[in-house]
This record gives sequence, C-alpha cells and structure tokens, in this order.
Amino acid sequence: MAVVTEHININTKGKADIIDITDKVRSKLTRTKLKDGTVTIFVIGSTGGLTTIEYEPALVSDIKGLFDKLIPSNIQYAHDATWGDANGHSHLRASLLGPSLTVPFSGNELTLGTWQQIIFIDFDNRSRSRKVVLQFIGE
Amino acid sequence: MAVVTEHININTKGKADIIDITDKVRSKLTRTKLKDGTVTIFVIGSTGGLTTIEYEPALVSDIKGLFDKLIPSNIQYAHDATWGDANGHSHLRASLLGPSLTVPFSGNELTLGTWQQIIFIDFDNRSRSRKVVLQFIGE
Amino acid sequence: MAVVTEHININTKGKADIIDITDKVRSKLTRTKLKDGTVTIFVIGSTGGLTTIEYEPALVSDIKGLFDKLIPSNIQYAHDATWGDANGHSHLRASLLGPSLTVPFSGNELTLGTWQQIIFIDFDNRSRSRKVVLQFIGE
Repeated sequence: MAVVTEHININTKGKADIIDITDKVRSKLTRTKLKDGTVTIFVIGSTGGLTTIEYEPALVSDIKGLFDKLIPSNIQYAHDATWGDANGHSHLRASLLGPSLTVPFSGNELTLGTWQQIIFIDFDNRSRSRKVVLQFIGE
Repeated sequence: MAVVTEHININTKGKADIIDITDKVRSKLTRTKLKDGTVTIFVIGSTGGLTTIEYEPALVSDIKGLFDKLIPSNIQYAHDATWGDANGHSHLRASLLGPSLTVPFSGNELTLGTWQQIIFIDFDNRSRSRKVVLQFIGE
Repeated sequence: MAVVTEHININTKGKADIIDITDKVRSKLTRTKLKDGTVTIFVIGSTGGLTTIEYEPALVSDIKGLFDKLIPSNIQYAHDATWGDANGHSHLRASLLGPSLTVPFSGNELTLGTWQQIIFIDFDNRSRSRKVVLQFIGE
C-alpha cells in the first residue's frame, strides 16, 4: 500500500467553465503504477467543484443552465459586498456541488462508465489558474 | 492494509427509483474481514447517484418530489436532442447529487446512524441493470 | 500505512446552523502523526451535511438563504407526518448536500485553500449534539 500525491493544473475561463479532466487523472494514475485503490480529487479553493457527466456539448450547456437557474449570477448575494468581487453565486454553486470526488481504480484503470467523464467546473466570475490535488491510495 | 474490490448489481425501474443498498454494502463489508477503513461506493454510468437518507416511504417520495422540482423531467434540455433518448434531466440530477460516496467503517461496522441508509437513485428514464463498485480500503 | 478513527463532537443550534470544523479536523490530523493520506469526514445521522466554503459571515448567511430557497422549511413534506417532527426539509437538504467529505493531506497538512474551510451544516429544526467521524488513512 502506498500514497502518491499528484497535482494537475487547469487554466479556465471561469463563469461555469466545464473542463473534462479525465485524461489528466488517467495519465497520473498510469504513472503511479498502482493497481487497485482510490483517487481523491480535491479542488484547492472555494469557487470550483467536481462531478462526473457524459461530456458532450449539449449536456455541458445544460449543466451551465442548471446552475444559472438554481443559483443565478444576476442577483445580489450578501458575500458580493464582502470583498467587492461580486462572486457570491460562484461560492454557493461550488459549495453545493462540492470540492471532492473519490473514484476507485482497479487494474490501474479508473472504474468509470464509457460515457462518464470527470469534470472540474470553475464557478468563479473570471479566468483562473487552478491547482487540483490527486491523492492516490492503493497497492 | 488491503484493498478489496467488490461490485453489487441493482435492477431498477428508473425514473428516480430509490434503492436502499445498505444491506448489500454491509454484507460485502462483513466478507472482507477488514476491521477499520473506508468503502468508496461508485456508480458506473452518468445517470445514477448516491447519498444517505432515513429510508421510509414518505421521505422516499419527498426526494423524488425534490428532484422533480429542481430539475423537472417535463421540460426540454439540449441533451435530449443528442441521442434522442430524452434523458437530459436524468444526467443533470445525477451530476448534481454525485456518483461517489465514501463511508467509514470501524470494527467491521459501517459508521451509519440508526436511521441513516445508503441509497442509490436511478435517475434514468427507463429500467436499468446497474453495477456499483465498492472499493474497500482498510486493515 | 495506517487507519486512525477519530470523532469530533459538535453542539449546534439546528436550523441550518453552519459550523466551521476545520480547526478540529486539523488538530486531530496533527495528533495522528500521519504525513500523507486522506481524511473522510462523515456525519452520523440523516439531517446534517458537509462541504467547504470561505467561512465569513455574509457567505454563511447566503448559504442559509440558498437552502431556504431550494428546499423551503415552510412548506409541507410527506415526511413531516411520519414522526410528527416536521423536519422533512432538514432531511432533503442533508441528502442533497451529502454526509461525506474526503480531504487529502500532505506533510501532515490538509490541502485546503487559504480561504477554504470545512463546514458542518446542521439542517435539523432543533439544537443537536452531533458526532462526526474522522477516518484517517495514510502513512
């Protein structure tokens, strides 16, 4: 059993930019040489989130639409006044979706479905350079 | 320390069918003989999700009602046109709830509350045969 | 590699009381002496949830507002009639947010951002004494 800590860097446009990070996670997994275990993917920061989707353009646009509807960007949040950066909606969306995703692997392969990709969503209201932690635990 | 990979199979009716999988997870845990660790439960596929609830009929119906309200099935999503299978709402619900749940165990027992069960929700719009991964890590 | 099981106790006011538990988790991590691994934080019970936020008063109030809007406490849920304790909304909020959060650590430090704190939200409709499990796995 071993722990391997890796990072991936992601440049985003913000505003619910949805990035498919599956290949980056898979590539790091290959290099760990671990056969069986889990990878915990974790967003450093409080305006990004993680989940899985079937990554195709229509669904990507549906996801953006969903967050626009549930937590609109064009209404005022108390947090908008705290630092004057008007990203209250970004924080709320990130907290609801969550910063952490744990994915099993077996035989050095992620146990994803064929039409299931791991996505990072940058909810901030501007472009960002993000660092995401990959904590592999396995044997 | 060891990793034990298991699967459970679930036949669902789709349409936000909510299945209590606690006993199946518990039964697999017993057989691992691991005392302390975590089990990561992971849905293979992008139209199912996991969480915990107090599993009783009224709350099961409330959960269905919640997803009907937040992400209605009777409106059009862009994804509905992609494959013609009209399950855009299923994908959005699954991505929001998330495909992964990690539960600790101690003394070979899940650390759940008395009125807290692990549920799989099949958001797809038809019956499905599902495979869920259980990745146990512990000692 | 080792597993260390810890608990933290939290007294809450209920009604979406939002508690920053970062220092308690960090303090338990320090004492484990583990360098690298993950901690799975898990709510025992079905009316509390976990996520991360920038913990500042305006955002704390925005989070409460978000759940009031998505899952109002002043409408009837089927579960309200089950035990007569009128906390259907508490269960729905907890299930949507989720009971489990896995956070990596590296060099005995949680990999959180500077403005990212771990919060427990007690969605129940009364004050509660809560026990949260911390399952550390690492080396």
